[in-house]
Amino acid sequence: MTRYDWYLECSACGTRGDPEGLPTVCPSCGQPWLVRYPDRPLSLTDRAEIHRGHGMWRFRRFLPLMDGEEPVTLGEGDTPLLRLDRAAPTLGYDALWLKDEGTNPTGSFKARGLAMAVTRAVLGGAESFVVPTAGNAGVALAAYAARAGRSARIYAPATTPRTILNQIRWFGGDLELLDGHIGDCGRRALEFAQETGAFPMATLREPYRIEGKKTLGLEIARQMWWKLPDAVVYPAGGGTGLIGMWLAFQELLELGWVQGRMPRLYAVQSAGCAPVVEAVARNADHCEPWPEPRTVASGLRVPAPLGGPLMLRGIRDSGGGAVAVSDEELSRRAIEISRLEGLDLSPEGGASLAAAARLLEAGAIKPSEHVVVFNTGAGWLYRD
Amino acid sequence: MTRYDWYLECSACGTRGDPEGLPTVCPSCGQPWLVRYPDRPLSLTDRAEIHRGHGMWRFRRFLPLMDGEEPVTLGEGDTPLLRLDRAAPTLGYDALWLKDEGTNPTGSFKARGLAMAVTRAVLGGAESFVVPTAGNAGVALAAYAARAGRSARIYAPATTPRTILNQIRWFGGDLELLDGHIGDCGRRALEFAQETGAFPMATLREPYRIEGKKTLGLEIARQMWWKLPDAVVYPAGGGTGLIGMWLAFQELLELGWVQGRMPRLYAVQSAGCAPVVEAVARNADHCEPWPEPRTVASGLRVPAPLGGPLMLRGIRDSGGGAVAVSDEELSRRAIEISRLEGLDLSPEGGASLAAAARLLEAGAIKPSEHVVVFNTGAGWLYRD
Repeated sequence: MTRYDWYLECSACGTRGDPEGLPTVCPSCGQPWLVRYPDRPLSLTDRAEIHRGHGMWRFRRFLPLMDGEEPVTLGEGDTPLLRLDRAAPTLGYDALWLKDEGTNPTGSFKARGLAMAVTRAVLGGAESFVVPTAGNAGVALAAYAARAGRSARIYAPATTPRTILNQIRWFGGDLELLDGHIGDCGRRALEFAQETGAFPMATLREPYRIEGKKTLGLEIARQMWWKLPDAVVYPAGGGTGLIGMWLAFQELLELGWVQGRMPRLYAVQSAGCAPVVEAVARNADHCEPWPEPRTVASGLRVPAPLGGPLMLRGIRDSGGGAVAVSDEELSRRAIEISRLEGLDLSPEGGASLAAAARLLEAGAIKPSEHVVVFNTGAGWLYRD
Repeated sequence: MTRYDWYLECSACGTRGDPEGLPTVCPSCGQPWLVRYPDRPLSLTDRAEIHRGHGMWRFRRFLPLMDGEEPVTLGEGDTPLLRLDRAAPTLGYDALWLKDEGTNPTGSFKARGLAMAVTRAVLGGAESFVVPTAGNAGVALAAYAARAGRSARIYAPATTPRTILNQIRWFGGDLELLDGHIGDCGRRALEFAQETGAFPMATLREPYRIEGKKTLGLEIARQMWWKLPDAVVYPAGGGTGLIGMWLAFQELLELGWVQGRMPRLYAVQSAGCAPVVEAVARNADHCEPWPEPRTVASGLRVPAPLGGPLMLRGIRDSGGGAVAVSDEELSRRAIEISRLEGLDLSPEGGASLAAAARLLEAGAIKPSEHVVVFNTGAGWLYRD
């Protein structure tokens, strides 16, 4: 019998797995695990406990952590949910909320997933880590590995913004640059894992980064006083944030902590790398690899996301959609809205705001709806 | 009769002032105002309200804000208080806590003071702002002014780290570089204020930045489950953080929300600019201007802090002290402890950790005491 109060379930074939040790992906079909908590007793009375807590670990009862286990943490979470009263009319909205993930430790939303995954991997016995990255996940892994006293090998495209690479080195990450995109880095990372025994931390190659990302959705619910927004407009590369929010909103609705319906989830991509947008347009259940991925929003340069099928399910189930914006448009919006609101938007944040305007024009969202857009990382990471 | 439930009291001569409009300093003696709240009803039952809140505004009942007034906010506060289990033994401590202010919006503790001061100045009718800065206050003012739809003129030494200057420009700050230190910038800023009517936001030249900084102390108390640490080791340039914590701890002790005694407050400075350390050594009640201020920790390059007398009172009243560390030592500690713990320490953060080790060697602090050190800003702001 397992000593955990959760189990793993394959997102594709339904195979059930044991959390013991260092699980990666489903051994039957190679697809990502999801975590299920059938026996967690959560009730309305636990909200006071949540309010008393700090950071994303205030939601530890929603996360794969047993009583007495301590997380590897740098204080991630509790990021601002800001009303954009000056940007909203510019973009055509009555009101608009931005979840600003740039104030996480290491400057991006990646902190949540890697805090959770490093925590479980260290408890499972991992001695070293490896990750392929479009940039921000590498910064986060380098920092959380250091915090845990472990080493981290990081493979990044040579085109990754220089400030991001400097931050990876600052935290002591063992950085290797490759010609190519994150898919190429992913292949090299798996080889390194096989050669050295380093535990692979790539998106959805282990079950727990996505659990950390659930806290995005849980936090939004708390910050909106336990009411969910009508729609979320999210810049999706690997897509764990979108999938994590989908899972979090499901859990909250099932628990009865929130009422109403699942927020519509909209994936935003760059026109230079839009496999999810293309799959949504085809009404497909998986993404086709994007041939020549090119965008300044390096976090969106993910041509063949392993989480494609899960993202597409989340988008379809929620009644959402997907939209591509040009690099010119997302860059322009990042500068415009940053100056208007005092924000440090990344290109991905600019993409989310540009898409919010587009979705309004297309009639997919109404100006009076409650909409949350995302700045997934801080803009300074992209500036040389 | 004033419509506010607080009044101003001169920190030097005791003159009482009205908060109406845009107060600056005491008209009788030119020294800083302190804010007093004799009529605020706070009781133990308000803690639940505080736990339900977000960011530093969870403490709004400790701040100069009336019911119905809305703050100008970017989500500042709720920064991590991290146990440094790997750094503590390296520095000789049984345990050690770091308050990491680098995860604030705009990357430093300056966000707290400027969120509060911009809020009150906008409510008081200010149309534009001016500030002299060693760096981080300029970034924060640029962002909060933008958030409020106001312009900000910022005077900074030409030697300010380039990344900091780029951030000021990103937020639309109207940046002027001067040869000289922050004192020279301060003189130019006052001229600009007189010429244009821009409201001067320099440290302690208005009463409210220090009130925002009180939330440092309030947050530490909450994060330590309403127990105060034995000592705080704080890198002090202008010193509002130290003064703010001193005021906050006083309020909490008077309210009975915490028991025991005031934490000993230690000011940390660079050997290249140590007017407070020198004044403590002389047992003086004010600082002498430091002739040629020089340090890589640009936030500590404040040769004649207006808050000198208040800092010295806080240090003396609390039974604390002051310590100078060399630039070599603070830089070395910043790199060493960042890699050990996955932190992005600024030079000022390195100074705080270096000083914690020195205070232990000198016998001022015992290894078993509960000590909080400070990273006042993120390290990336200092890297080109």
